[in-house]
Amino acid sequence: MAANGRNENGSIHQYIISVKVENRFGVLARVAGLFSARGYNIDSLAVSATEDDGISVMTIVVKGDDRVIEQVKKQLNKLIDVIKVTDHTESATVQQETVLVKLNAIPKNRAEIYQLCEFFSADIAGISPKTITLSAKGDPDKLDNFIELIKPYGIRELMRTGRISMLKE
Amino acid sequence: MAANGRNENGSIHQYIISVKVENRFGVLARVAGLFSARGYNIDSLAVSATEDDGISVMTIVVKGDDRVIEQVKKQLNKLIDVIKVTDHTESATVQQETVLVKLNAIPKNRAEIYQLCEFFSADIAGISPKTITLSAKGDPDKLDNFIELIKPYGIRELMRTGRISMLKE
Repeated sequence: MAANGRNENGSIHQYIISVKVENRFGVLARVAGLFSARGYNIDSLAVSATEDDGISVMTIVVKGDDRVIEQVKKQLNKLIDVIKVTDHTESATVQQETVLVKLNAIPKNRAEIYQLCEFFSADIAGISPKTITLSAKGDPDKLDNFIELIKPYGIRELMRTGRISMLKE
Repeated sequence: MAANGRNENGSIHQYIISVKVENRFGVLARVAGLFSARGYNIDSLAVSATEDDGISVMTIVVKGDDRVIEQVKKQLNKLIDVIKVTDHTESATVQQETVLVKLNAIPKNRAEIYQLCEFFSADIAGISPKTITLSAKGDPDKLDNFIELIKPYGIRELMRTGRISMLKE
């Protein structure tokens, strides 16, 4: 089996894996190392606090071969400091993400940009004579749609947080 | 000099470091490794897409000794696949983050929770007979304040994306 996710016999999917970890140094490097050892690149990663002090959650979005990802999940479970691994790929989830984007915005374009912000419940985070900085929150598809629509105005800088994912009841 | 950020001679601060990287496997593990090798734990990390295909940005929030962080920044700059390291700690920035939180919410508490959502421009992402799931976006201080106010209702599950940070014009 190829180690780089390009195995013709397996199928490549995008996975969303949630890993609850003890908030200790080294755990992030070990988790990241499990993916890079297989030549897998992480599409997005969000690591932050949870309801419990000392516990963090990593939400990993990665494309890979079904069988390789199964192996990685097993190995994640064996890592010291990993409390729980949950695969959110096929589950009913709430997914949210934030984007920050700085646009070229000469005054005559502002009205159109404001209209898009209203439609997407985006906020104006900053404004200068030639630029406007917007922030928007939503599920990743909504944000893709938002970015597509504001792209024609000229994107100077864009960054996304990476998604977080919570299982529905 | 102690390697664990507890050096009495230096001073410990929270840093916000933005690292633009080529989106290749291994770079995340190497960056994480630079911090963990010094016994530094990352408070939050957001890794995701930028305006350029093939380039990701990592926003790292970490507490550490001033001099050790300076070393880490130099070493980050030397890493293969690292394009640019920017320290946002002292700069004028726009910072945004998203939180997802599942609360215990019996019907008689809902009205109060709805009010808080309105005040914080939070959205109701899901509702069940005994729970309510909220999502909110904002700068980290605003989200801390939101979490403090909803805590008394009983938090079942909480996760944050980790902040992203963009320099102002």
